[in-house]
Amino acid sequence: MSKKKVLVISGPNLNLLGAREKDIYGDVTLKEIYLKMMDISSNEDLIVECKQSNSESEIIDFIQDAQSEFDGIIINAGGYTHTSVSIRDALKYFDGYIIEIHMSNIHAREEFRKISMISGVSDGLIVGFGPDSYYLALKAITSKL
Amino acid sequence: MSKKKVLVISGPNLNLLGAREKDIYGDVTLKEIYLKMMDISSNEDLIVECKQSNSESEIIDFIQDAQSEFDGIIINAGGYTHTSVSIRDALKYFDGYIIEIHMSNIHAREEFRKISMISGVSDGLIVGFGPDSYYLALKAITSKL
Amino acid sequence: MSKKKVLVISGPNLNLLGAREKDIYGDVTLKEIYLKMMDISSNEDLIVECKQSNSESEIIDFIQDAQSEFDGIIINAGGYTHTSVSIRDALKYFDGYIIEIHMSNIHAREEFRKISMISGVSDGLIVGFGPDSYYLALKAITSKL
Amino acid sequence: MSKKKVLVISGPNLNLLGAREKDIYGDVTLKEIYLKMMDISSNEDLIVECKQSNSESEIIDFIQDAQSEFDGIIINAGGYTHTSVSIRDALKYFDGYIIEIHMSNIHAREEFRKISMISGVSDGLIVGFGPDSYYLALKAITSKL
Amino acid sequence: MSKKKVLVISGPNLNLLGAREKDIYGDVTLKEIYLKMMDISSNEDLIVECKQSNSESEIIDFIQDAQSEFDGIIINAGGYTHTSVSIRDALKYFDGYIIEIHMSNIHAREEFRKISMISGVSDGLIVGFGPDSYYLALKAITSKL
Amino acid sequence: MSKKKVLVISGPNLNLLGAREKDIYGDVTLKEIYLKMMDISSNEDLIVECKQSNSESEIIDFIQDAQSEFDGIIINAGGYTHTSVSIRDALKYFDGYIIEIHMSNIHAREEFRKISMISGVSDGLIVGFGPDSYYLALKAITSKL
Amino acid sequence: MSKKKVLVISGPNLNLLGAREKDIYGDVTLKEIYLKMMDISSNEDLIVECKQSNSESEIIDFIQDAQSEFDGIIINAGGYTHTSVSIRDALKYFDGYIIEIHMSNIHAREEFRKISMISGVSDGLIVGFGPDSYYLALKAITSKL
Amino acid sequence: MSKKKVLVISGPNLNLLGAREKDIYGDVTLKEIYLKMMDISSNEDLIVECKQSNSESEIIDFIQDAQSEFDGIIINAGGYTHTSVSIRDALKYFDGYIIEIHMSNIHAREEFRKISMISGVSDGLIVGFGPDSYYLALKAITSKL
Amino acid sequence: MSKKKVLVISGPNLNLLGAREKDIYGDVTLKEIYLKMMDISSNEDLIVECKQSNSESEIIDFIQDAQSEFDGIIINAGGYTHTSVSIRDALKYFDGYIIEIHMSNIHAREEFRKISMISGVSDGLIVGFGPDSYYLALKAITSKL
Amino acid sequence: MSKKKVLVISGPNLNLLGAREKDIYGDVTLKEIYLKMMDISSNEDLIVECKQSNSESEIIDFIQDAQSEFDGIIINAGGYTHTSVSIRDALKYFDGYIIEIHMSNIHAREEFRKISMISGVSDGLIVGFGPDSYYLALKAITSKL
Amino acid sequence: MSKKKVLVISGPNLNLLGAREKDIYGDVTLKEIYLKMMDISSNEDLIVECKQSNSESEIIDFIQDAQSEFDGIIINAGGYTHTSVSIRDALKYFDGYIIEIHMSNIHAREEFRKISMISGVSDGLIVGFGPDSYYLALKAITSKL
Amino acid sequence: MSKKKVLVISGPNLNLLGAREKDIYGDVTLKEIYLKMMDISSNEDLIVECKQSNSESEIIDFIQDAQSEFDGIIINAGGYTHTSVSIRDALKYFDGYIIEIHMSNIHAREEFRKISMISGVSDGLIVGFGPDSYYLALKAITSKL
Repeated sequence: MSKKKVLVISGPNLNLLGAREKDIYGDVTLKEIYLKMMDISSNEDLIVECKQSNSESEIIDFIQDAQSEFDGIIINAGGYTHTSVSIRDALKYFDGYIIEIHMSNIHAREEFRKISMISGVSDGLIVGFGPDSYYLALKAITSKL
Repeated sequence: MSKKKVLVISGPNLNLLGAREKDIYGDVTLKEIYLKMMDISSNEDLIVECKQSNSESEIIDFIQDAQSEFDGIIINAGGYTHTSVSIRDALKYFDGYIIEIHMSNIHAREEFRKISMISGVSDGLIVGFGPDSYYLALKAITSKL
Repeated sequence: MSKKKVLVISGPNLNLLGAREKDIYGDVTLKEIYLKMMDISSNEDLIVECKQSNSESEIIDFIQDAQSEFDGIIINAGGYTHTSVSIRDALKYFDGYIIEIHMSNIHAREEFRKISMISGVSDGLIVGFGPDSYYLALKAITSKL
Repeated sequence: MSKKKVLVISGPNLNLLGAREKDIYGDVTLKEIYLKMMDISSNEDLIVECKQSNSESEIIDFIQDAQSEFDGIIINAGGYTHTSVSIRDALKYFDGYIIEIHMSNIHAREEFRKISMISGVSDGLIVGFGPDSYYLALKAITSKL
Repeated sequence: MSKKKVLVISGPNLNLLGAREKDIYGDVTLKEIYLKMMDISSNEDLIVECKQSNSESEIIDFIQDAQSEFDGIIINAGGYTHTSVSIRDALKYFDGYIIEIHMSNIHAREEFRKISMISGVSDGLIVGFGPDSYYLALKAITSKL
Repeated sequence: MSKKKVLVISGPNLNLLGAREKDIYGDVTLKEIYLKMMDISSNEDLIVECKQSNSESEIIDFIQDAQSEFDGIIINAGGYTHTSVSIRDALKYFDGYIIEIHMSNIHAREEFRKISMISGVSDGLIVGFGPDSYYLALKAITSKL
Repeated sequence: MSKKKVLVISGPNLNLLGAREKDIYGDVTLKEIYLKMMDISSNEDLIVECKQSNSESEIIDFIQDAQSEFDGIIINAGGYTHTSVSIRDALKYFDGYIIEIHMSNIHAREEFRKISMISGVSDGLIVGFGPDSYYLALKAITSKL
Repeated sequence: MSKKKVLVISGPNLNLLGAREKDIYGDVTLKEIYLKMMDISSNEDLIVECKQSNSESEIIDFIQDAQSEFDGIIINAGGYTHTSVSIRDALKYFDGYIIEIHMSNIHAREEFRKISMISGVSDGLIVGFGPDSYYLALKAITSKL
Repeated sequence: MSKKKVLVISGPNLNLLGAREKDIYGDVTLKEIYLKMMDISSNEDLIVECKQSNSESEIIDFIQDAQSEFDGIIINAGGYTHTSVSIRDALKYFDGYIIEIHMSNIHAREEFRKISMISGVSDGLIVGFGPDSYYLALKAITSKL
Repeated sequence: MSKKKVLVISGPNLNLLGAREKDIYGDVTLKEIYLKMMDISSNEDLIVECKQSNSESEIIDFIQDAQSEFDGIIINAGGYTHTSVSIRDALKYFDGYIIEIHMSNIHAREEFRKISMISGVSDGLIVGFGPDSYYLALKAITSKL
Repeated sequence: MSKKKVLVISGPNLNLLGAREKDIYGDVTLKEIYLKMMDISSNEDLIVECKQSNSESEIIDFIQDAQSEFDGIIINAGGYTHTSVSIRDALKYFDGYIIEIHMSNIHAREEFRKISMISGVSDGLIVGFGPDSYYLALKAITSKL
Repeated sequence: MSKKKVLVISGPNLNLLGAREKDIYGDVTLKEIYLKMMDISSNEDLIVECKQSNSESEIIDFIQDAQSEFDGIIINAGGYTHTSVSIRDALKYFDGYIIEIHMSNIHAREEFRKISMISGVSDGLIVGFGPDSYYLALKAITSKL
């Protein structure tokens, strides 16, 4: 049987991880998180591909392109989480398993961060565990695929 | 007298037409719709140019560039319909005739799809006719130009 | 094969067309619009019947009576658009194709005109083309029936 | 002692009962419901008069005319339930006992059906029992008069 | 110079004046109010015509027909005040002077009575004076015409 | 055929019936209502079991336990009507017929009493008939089972 | 019998009448309005006293002091109309007849002008007649006192 | 070093798992989930204690009692999630790590399920993975303690 | 004359006083507060009985049982303050004097703490004085009884 | 040690106490309340100064001037309670202890009285005890200073 | 050509600048700010007059009096910014250039500070620069006059 | 000491300045504004770099890249002002001084333009001065850096 493939997408400003607001997000960089995910996935007999973009349309493109190739998507859509109907639509058209993640607890922050356009079309949601949100999502998707 | 020119813009995820959610949108592809529009326009003595983009800024660019060259715009802004002040502004600055279209009946779907940022600056609105929304818009704009 | 039949319904105050607010609605009368629809329909091999009423219940009656006889309804419900649950219900019970139309762009007017009780049960929506809203609806319904 | 008299009023589109949406409302017609009410009432030593109208003003007239003649009103105001201040006012001026009924559970449908302009001036409310809503109301009013 | 003509319109349930809720509205009937208005108008060299209807469409008809014949309208739209976009539209198309009146203080009653669809297109508003609301309106319109 | 069984549940403060607010609820006690229900049910060839609790969890337990034993539930959830998602969920999982009742007209009281968490999962609703609300519900459920 | 006394109060910015926004308010000054009111009142055998203030507390003082001396108050509270709970309270404590007036139609202006803190405690309301709002109020109060 | 202890709390109606709504929640029972958690925890060198209650106060008691004994809480508060300020307060006073879980995607269900009173005081949130929500939470808390 | 009796009720999580969030609530325990209240009451010739419960239904029971025995209730309903219609109802049925208290200033905390279901049926309200809120309430009720 | 000083401020219309709405506020005058406060304070070894004003700015001045001289403020801001950001700001800048009081239960009155601009910056709140609200506040502030 | 004149108005509590909340507003007094404005204005060949008041009506008077004498107004309305319709109206009647200023960033503070009644009638807005807000406004108005 | 550096960012459609809506924005082009800013900055011993983009992600990139190189940002985010959480986040992560500017008075335009996602993370705000908004911002930032 061929290995399952998972696409990991991080949205706007997540490329700053480890450099900014270390008290909230810690000093781990997105690169380090992605490397660790690769590590874990190799143990889980899973192929993981990791992307980041500040661009809403690029994220839409990532999701569309994933259709024929990937079995699942782990997405931390950053600021687009709360506003993007278009990312929601792209995810809705995706056939695989979708996990929405956030590193910080968005429910304990500003009022406008409590609304997610994406939750309604995601299968699962993991929020508030810092870098672990990524690793737990990988764990979760492994058991689902 | 020179022929009138119309720009047709389709927004995010409309490139997936014909491949996804066939029960709602049918199996016609955007390319086929665009070809049929060309056909119709040649009969109507109209020049039609058709574009698609998943990018909000590219759509703004399309509209800005249309100013000096096109007499009308037919726009299906997809998910940006409900959120983009910037596309609204670009359309407001455009001098020609503007028709907003949607393939499905956005009023019979989720609550957040009932609000259009674009309707307030459009001249006309055609909603719910599937691919025919495009052809009717062409018909409508022909009679207005 | 027998000809398809379409019922056209115009609601309250539309009998004043051509006499009032000419800057918005032009000087075409509803009678002239209806005559032109007859013209078009004869070309389209379609039978069109046109009615107007200021009465909510009469409009409900029109729709109920159309059930056994007509294949489609084109309705401009005027002021009842924004308030009438009963017209909505009557339309919902109608088996044929339904197009909601408006002559002016209701989205560029008062806040309370942005809500339509009827859109949720209509198949298609054509807004803002003046008298052409009627002709385009005829065009649209022809292609659907 | 003279027999008590009850007026039964059914509002817009209820004349379609039995012919439309049978999965929701069953195939009993309003006429059959009314006949059964006559039956029941003759056993209860009650006089029942049954009316239906699609017209808001006709319903107001029914209620006003009931004042001198009837001891109670059973009203299923259909779509006017949610919007008619005028039917509410007419009922408020009526001295007898008032029961508001609905055949389907309006609380399990669209958001706008959850608001009733009439409940505030009704004595009792019976909702969701199909044709039985009518018979239960008759039962209820018998015990009150 | 020909005499000015004023149309007085009373809406639903106002035909019950003098018979119901006497503590609020007193025991003057609408007929008596209308007779007194005739009296006053003959002194003011004004022609007054007085109508009442429980029907929204009849009220629309009254207003439309007034266009060619009357210089002003005094309207107590009763329960339609709070809901009728169509009466609002009819009034907006009327060229003469419009006064909206209410007998009771609608601002000291239920929440839903605080919103008037008609106030936005009326020239003046007289509220809370019982039958005097009618006579004051006559006084007011006399000085305006 | 075995007799049908109905569980009657009264929520918080309904144990005070007959002792408090007699002007609203009369002087009948809940015990008397329950006795009369037994009486009626024996005539209807129905088994009725009646419970009361001030505790949200006990009411949930009642409903859960009813699953294997009862064919229907009549529930007057008192103050929990307006707030309890958990009672709603318990009712949703129950397979039998559910009738929500209230003794007073909750629509003519405080704003917060107009919202019922339970109506959306009930089959029918009987409101405002005092003790008769209980007896009518029994009547209603008899005809449904 | 002693003459009735009426206090007329004009609120903030009404001292500018006749000098500013003449297209809306005309070129009549508040002084001229007040003089004409004196004129009218002497004919009506009424004593009128007229005040103006830009100060909320001074207006409260006017109303409090009126208690022992005046039989009615005509108040145009200007901008305080929409915000002042304190003027509302002062009026509520006043025993005489209260008429709230506005020169322009506040319902055809900004949203925040549609709410009046004062209407709930006024007996009558006269809106939109320019200076005539003052004279009509005098007429109205004469007939009430 | 002593083993870390985790308290698992399941709220109202979760005792029905496996018996009701199997299409949504599957046929795994809460007991089976709890057994599997014990299994996992023994591997992770963690002590897990599992409780369920339909009672809000019992859940508060569980949380209060956990203070001196447990290092973390995994809570699926069921219907109380959306309403209980008191459970929120109890959790806020707890010093250890808190994970809120839900088996189904609450964001894809009724509007009132989108609000959680508990998220604001939880450290992390895991939603929509069915029984896996429990196992993932255990995984997550292990890495945090 | 017999001594007056006052019931003091503290709701969920108040049993933690003195142990948690000492910076807000100080280190006084509820037991100490209750002892001091006994002290004060003995001076005031008043009998005080003090209870605490985390259970909504138990608090309802306390209030119902107080009816025949107590002249007043001092209640700090904790988290139930903001949600419990049932405690509100129980209090409404209580004939004696009711004082609602809170130790912290609920108006300077989260938005949802600003709404109290209980204030509408309380006679008086004392908020923000820490343990003194209890003693002041005792003082207040002494002067009222 | 020098005596502590407390400033008592009563806002608009409180000078009418004892003369108006005696059924709600009793027949005690503000002067009598103030005298009794002086009495109490002399026992408590406290200096109390009492002021009243109908003017928002004068109340702001009172508060500003209190800064260097007083250790606490007891304020009944009357109608300004619900609207004055400026009094709120003045209080916020005051270093001493602040108690907000109301004589009637503002939560059992009009909706707009439920919002207090002042509560957020007050230390404590005493509501609904009539004149006792003043005396209790004095008691409360004594124990705090 | 005569020199341009600018009126600077500071509202309630701004007289406390430099003495209170130094961490937010710094230790510059309003007097010092005004002196520096005089300095700047003499360089700019501008006449500046500076006022402060805690009184809404006095601020209205300042604005009204400015009409005949000043070419522009710089206003920091303090707490009245968010509530005063009357100051808004006074500013609307002023013919010159109007700049609204705030020293702190009102958008990063309490919710009720985000709404300004004045912004809609101001020409420009300068927010968040501390004392520099005043000097920048002077700079801005110089270039506009 | 090295010169301070300021990045100026203009968002979508601002590249059309001078060509569209000249009545509102004048006929100055963005290029001309930028040139003038360079001029001013050279006098102020400041280095200014000016960018424009219609793309949300490009603006995010500009801001992220500014971190290591610029001391301040002046941003006119155009239509993204009202919707972009992601630009807000990028700005929040920027260490330097941030000024948000708008050329027109957004508070005197459509309702949706009154909300700015950016104001909460900006230090200062300059609105409504046309091209001067840019120059004033430069002035302001000079004095802050």
